[in-house]
Amino acid sequence: MSYVVTGASRGIGLELIKQLLDLPASQVTKVFALTRSTPPAALQTLLDKHADRAEHITASVNDTQSVQQAAQAVEAKLEGKGLDVLINNAGIFGAVSTNGATSIPPEELARVLDVNVVGPHRMMSAFLPLLEAGKQKKVINITSTLGSLALSEHYTFAPVPPYKVSKTALNMLNKQYALEYKGRGFTFLAVSPGWLKTDLGGPHADLDVDVGVAEVIRITLEATPEQNGQALNIRVPGMEERYDGKVVPW
Amino acid sequence: MSYVVTGASRGIGLELIKQLLDLPASQVTKVFALTRSTPPAALQTLLDKHADRAEHITASVNDTQSVQQAAQAVEAKLEGKGLDVLINNAGIFGAVSTNGATSIPPEELARVLDVNVVGPHRMMSAFLPLLEAGKQKKVINITSTLGSLALSEHYTFAPVPPYKVSKTALNMLNKQYALEYKGRGFTFLAVSPGWLKTDLGGPHADLDVDVGVAEVIRITLEATPEQNGQALNIRVPGMEERYDGKVVPW
Repeated sequence: MSYVVTGASRGIGLELIKQLLDLPASQVTKVFALTRSTPPAALQTLLDKHADRAEHITASVNDTQSVQQAAQAVEAKLEGKGLDVLINNAGIFGAVSTNGATSIPPEELARVLDVNVVGPHRMMSAFLPLLEAGKQKKVINITSTLGSLALSEHYTFAPVPPYKVSKTALNMLNKQYALEYKGRGFTFLAVSPGWLKTDLGGPHADLDVDVGVAEVIRITLEATPEQNGQALNIRVPGMEERYDGKVVPW
Repeated sequence: MSYVVTGASRGIGLELIKQLLDLPASQVTKVFALTRSTPPAALQTLLDKHADRAEHITASVNDTQSVQQAAQAVEAKLEGKGLDVLINNAGIFGAVSTNGATSIPPEELARVLDVNVVGPHRMMSAFLPLLEAGKQKKVINITSTLGSLALSEHYTFAPVPPYKVSKTALNMLNKQYALEYKGRGFTFLAVSPGWLKTDLGGPHADLDVDVGVAEVIRITLEATPEQNGQALNIRVPGMEERYDGKVVPW
């Protein structure tokens, strides 16, 4: 199966590339790592080690043309085969509000929405023809339980209104694609990877990045069209209160 | 009580100005009608008729500076009094998808998010100091049940992914403000005005604009801090299946 992963230079994206390439070649035939610029050393090492299955593509999810060019580049490399799985991981945390939501510059909210919502739309829109030709037809949008309206009273400790609003919007975008491609073999899932120790998550996060990413991959592999449109949480034994592996309430 | 209403040139906004000015001067002391450009005739007639209580301000919700200037203009006109109610009504419907969500140009999604989500943020951010000095401290964000994740399977007949995604995001933005200003006398409400016969709603809509707007005003007048953060539907006798007057599920 072939995979495209955005935001592959670090954090969750880099670990996704690593763990996907750790799977046998019979299971993962090709991994396309998309980054905005030259791959950092950690990614380049992985690309070199798995040169037969790993490809790097330069693309910015906030640039429509570069995303369309990336889709053309992936299509050429797939040599007539479709794409099986798209993982929209690239995202930004945006400004932390120090003095209430009012203190967030409007331009910052617009920037976060552009990367975290319009970005996945650019990717899905450009890669859908390739996914349609693939066997798995899976799209994983990396979301966050911080985007849950129902849970929002539990997350007041995280003062990141733009990030939260963007993830709520991403859940709806995922749902819209799910409804439109329903019954055609697609599975669009919004997956919350947990609060992970990445540059975005910070050093006080709940989990090491490999734990959350292993769960994202498990959810991806087990995903079926019956789950199409859902937002799913990871499952972490002993931490079920936060990570129950269930559908995240809207 | 003093009111600011955005998008006052037509549709829901124009009718809000009309019905607010129809209330007695003891109840509605001042109405500020915000429009992007010169008031159209229908609005100008209302402004002239109620010259003692109605004011026009030019501002675009997609332009941060013009919103900040509008806040200064309103502040000057209020002569030391605070603002009581802000109604964020200005919004756009955006592109109708003719061939699935994929066919929506990314720039169109970005434009709809900017007007419908960043726009209300610009307004709330700029007017909060004035609202803080007001007696009512009410903010009404005009949303839509089309933005409900829980109801989305019922609304597949409306092929407007950008509009839907923007209203889901607006509900979360409303919730974020509600949580941050909780316990300080504020009431942030997302209100769905129903499917109304406006330029946006089209001629086949469920209700005449005055019916939906009367309900928005009833909800505004009756709003209490206990409802802070909710999304509310209008109530229409005989049409309770669609308009039950209750909290809209997320």
